[in-house]
Amino acid sequence: MTKHYLPATPETVHWGYFSRTLAPVLTIRSGDSVTVESITHHANDDYERMIAGDPAAEKIFLWTKDEKTLRRRGAGATEGPFTHGAGEGLGVHLLTGPIAVEGAQPGDVLEVRVIDTYPRPSANPAYKGRFFGSNPSANWGFQYNDLIEEPKKREVVTIYELDMGEASVTALYSYLWTSQTDPDGIVHPTIDYPGVRVDHATVVKKEGILSGIKVPARLHFGTMGLAPAEADYVSTIPPNYTGGNMDDWRIAKGARMYYPVAVAGALFSCGDAHASQGDSELSGTAIEISLTGEFEFILHKKADLDGTVLEGLNHPLLENDDVWSVYGFSVANYLTELGPDHQSEILKRSSLDGAMRDAFRKLRRFLMTTQKLTEDEAISLMSVAADFAVTQVVDANWGVTGTIRKSLFAGR
Amino acid sequence: MTKHYLPATPETVHWGYFSRTLAPVLTIRSGDSVTVESITHHANDDYERMIAGDPAAEKIFLWTKDEKTLRRRGAGATEGPFTHGAGEGLGVHLLTGPIAVEGAQPGDVLEVRVIDTYPRPSANPAYKGRFFGSNPSANWGFQYNDLIEEPKKREVVTIYELDMGEASVTALYSYLWTSQTDPDGIVHPTIDYPGVRVDHATVVKKEGILSGIKVPARLHFGTMGLAPAEADYVSTIPPNYTGGNMDDWRIAKGARMYYPVAVAGALFSCGDAHASQGDSELSGTAIEISLTGEFEFILHKKADLDGTVLEGLNHPLLENDDVWSVYGFSVANYLTELGPDHQSEILKRSSLDGAMRDAFRKLRRFLMTTQKLTEDEAISLMSVAADFAVTQVVDANWGVTGTIRKSLFAGR
Repeated sequence: MTKHYLPATPETVHWGYFSRTLAPVLTIRSGDSVTVESITHHANDDYERMIAGDPAAEKIFLWTKDEKTLRRRGAGATEGPFTHGAGEGLGVHLLTGPIAVEGAQPGDVLEVRVIDTYPRPSANPAYKGRFFGSNPSANWGFQYNDLIEEPKKREVVTIYELDMGEASVTALYSYLWTSQTDPDGIVHPTIDYPGVRVDHATVVKKEGILSGIKVPARLHFGTMGLAPAEADYVSTIPPNYTGGNMDDWRIAKGARMYYPVAVAGALFSCGDAHASQGDSELSGTAIEISLTGEFEFILHKKADLDGTVLEGLNHPLLENDDVWSVYGFSVANYLTELGPDHQSEILKRSSLDGAMRDAFRKLRRFLMTTQKLTEDEAISLMSVAADFAVTQVVDANWGVTGTIRKSLFAGR
Repeated sequence: MTKHYLPATPETVHWGYFSRTLAPVLTIRSGDSVTVESITHHANDDYERMIAGDPAAEKIFLWTKDEKTLRRRGAGATEGPFTHGAGEGLGVHLLTGPIAVEGAQPGDVLEVRVIDTYPRPSANPAYKGRFFGSNPSANWGFQYNDLIEEPKKREVVTIYELDMGEASVTALYSYLWTSQTDPDGIVHPTIDYPGVRVDHATVVKKEGILSGIKVPARLHFGTMGLAPAEADYVSTIPPNYTGGNMDDWRIAKGARMYYPVAVAGALFSCGDAHASQGDSELSGTAIEISLTGEFEFILHKKADLDGTVLEGLNHPLLENDDVWSVYGFSVANYLTELGPDHQSEILKRSSLDGAMRDAFRKLRRFLMTTQKLTEDEAISLMSVAADFAVTQVVDANWGVTGTIRKSLFAGR
C-alpha cells in the first residue's frame, strides 16, 4: 500500500466536466491511499478570504484580459462566440483528478473509502488559519421562481465561517449578486459561469445575518465519481450512474462509496466540497469550501463481485458502519436514456417522483440480489424499514436516497 | 388536570372518515390527559391473532349476513347499490374519537403530546399476550404497477410479530391476497374495503420469510388529527391541513403535534397505528397494529399564538426534543384547492414534487415568522441545515417532511 499526495494545481484539476479523454494526473494501485486537495469553485465569491495568499488557488483562478489559467470551464463549446465563456459553464465544479487505478476495467467496481477530511485554511494574513465557505442562493435553486420578497429572481451569496473546534459553521455576511463583467468582457447578470471574481466594490454587504445561529458541520465532498463512457465531455452538474454531483452529506468521513467503472483506469475525480448541507441543497448550493480528503481506493474486479454486496451494481452505493444507501435519480442514466440532447433534456426531466421510482427499483434490486430476498420480501421490508430522503432538488438529475440499516441483517 | 381513559368500543370508534358532524365521545379540558385505545383496521388479515378473544375487537369487526356493527366504512355513499360497501371504503382507517376540547375554536391550535404508547396484546389463548401486526403490499402501494415477478398486480399480506423486550419486529408468514367475498355477497378481488375478514382457507401461507431479519420497532400512530371544516365526511386517506393520515414514524413517544383547529371542539381522533414504518411507506401500509396511546392535550388560543412557534400556523407541526418538522403535501389543502371532486382529483395530483414545494414554503414561513429571519436568511439556512425526507408516497396526498434542528437556535 502506497500513500500518495495529490495537490490541487492548474495541472491536477479540471473544471466543470468529467472526461474519458483526460490523462490521469496520478496512477495508483488498488489498496493505495491518496490525500487529495480540492478547491471550491465558489472561492471567488470572496477572493480575499478564499484565494488571496494561496498560491495554488491564485494560479487556478487566474483570469485577466491576457491570461486565463483554466480556459475550459464546462462540457460545452470551447470556440466562441460564447454566451458565458469557454466550456459555457455547462458543468461548474472544480475537480481534482483524474486518478487512474491500475487494471480497472468496465464492469469492475471502485470502492473509495473516505478516511478523513481537512478544510483548507485561508492563506491571507488577515484571515490566516481560518476557514471560509460560500452559500449562493442561485438561479438554479429550488426557491428561485418562488420568492416572496423583492427584488424577485434575486441571487444572494452568504459567506460562512467554519469553526473546527466547535465543528460548527456561522454566517458572516451576505450580498445580493450584482451583474459582474469578466476579464473577457462577457457580462454575467446571474451566476452563470464558474470562477467569475465578484468585484466587492459592486456589492453591498449585509452583516449580522443569521445572528446567534450555529450550523453543525457536515464536512463532505458534493462531487466524487468516475468518468462516464458515453461522451468525451460530460457536465459535472447532473449526477449519474458513475456518481458525480450527488450532494449527499453522508459521503463523509467513514463512508465507503462504490462506483461502477465505465472506462479503463476508472478515472476518479473529486471536488465541490461542503462544510455543511441539508437534504435537498435547496438554494442550489451548500456551504462551498475548499477541502482536502484522505481516501483509500480498492478495486473490486468484475469476476469477484458475485456473492458480495456489489453483485450486479450499476449505480453508486454508499456503505458506512450503519447503513447501505442507493441513489435514485430522475433518470437513472440520462446519458443513454435521453438521446443526443441529454444535456438540455435532463433539465426538463428533473423530478423527485422519477428519483423515488429509481431509488425504489435500485433498493429492490439490491435486496433481492445481495440479500437473496424474494420480491415480496424486499417490498415488505422496504415499506417497514427503509427510509427514502430527498438528496437534492437542484442538480438537474434530482435525487432520492434509499437507505437500509445493516443491523436488520445481523441475525442472518 | 384530569386523566381519562377512552376504550375502543363500537360507540367510540368511527371508520374511514373524519367528520365535523360526529358527536364527541369524550369532552376534555386543556391540560387533561387521555389514554386512547385504537384497533387496527387490518386486524382481519389474521382474525385468530388480532381479533379472536378480544371482546371489543370482535364486536367492532362483527359482520355477518344479518349484522354489521359498523356499517359505514369510508366517506362515500351509504345507500346502495355499492361497489365496495357502505361508505365505499373511501377512507379506511378505524379511528377512536372524536375527543372534544372545551373552548376550542377555529383559529386555535391543539397540541397533542404523545406521552407513551402500548401495543394491544392478542387475547386469543393460543397467542395470549403476544403482539401481532399486518403489512399488506397493496394495490395503492408505490410498487403495484411496477412489479417484476409473476403474478403481476398481486397483493401480498405479511404478518409480523412485535417483541417488546427486544423492541423489534419479525415476519411470521405471508400470503397472496385472494378474492374475498364479504357477508353481503360483494366480491373483493383486491383490498378495496376495510375490515373484510380474510378466509384463511382460501390463502396459502408462506412461512420462513425474511428469515433472520429483525426490524427495530418504531411504535407510532399513522393517523392523528382533527375534523376539517370543509365537508361533513372526509376520507381518512389523504392527509391535509388538520393532520390525519400523515404516516410519519416520528409521531411517536416524545412528540408534540400541533394541529390548526378547524371546528368548534377541535374533534381529535387517532388510529392507524404502526409497529414500524420506513420513510415512504412504500407498499401502501406499515406494520399495522392495535395500539393504545397516552396523550396530553393543550389548547393554544388564537390570541396567544403570536410570538410563539405557533404563530400563523395553518398546517400540522411536529416538535420533539431535537427538531421541528413541517409537513408538505402534494396539495396543501386539497379540500379547498381541488373543487367538489377533491376526493378523486387528489389521486391525479399525487406528487413528491408538489409536496417538496409545499414543504419548502411551509418551512420558509415557519423560519421567517417564528425565528424572525429574512427570506434570504431562511433560504440559506434551509439549504445548509434543513433536511427534507419522503414521508409517504401512498396516501393520495403525498408527503415530504421538512425538518430543522432546534439546537441551531440555542445561542439566540
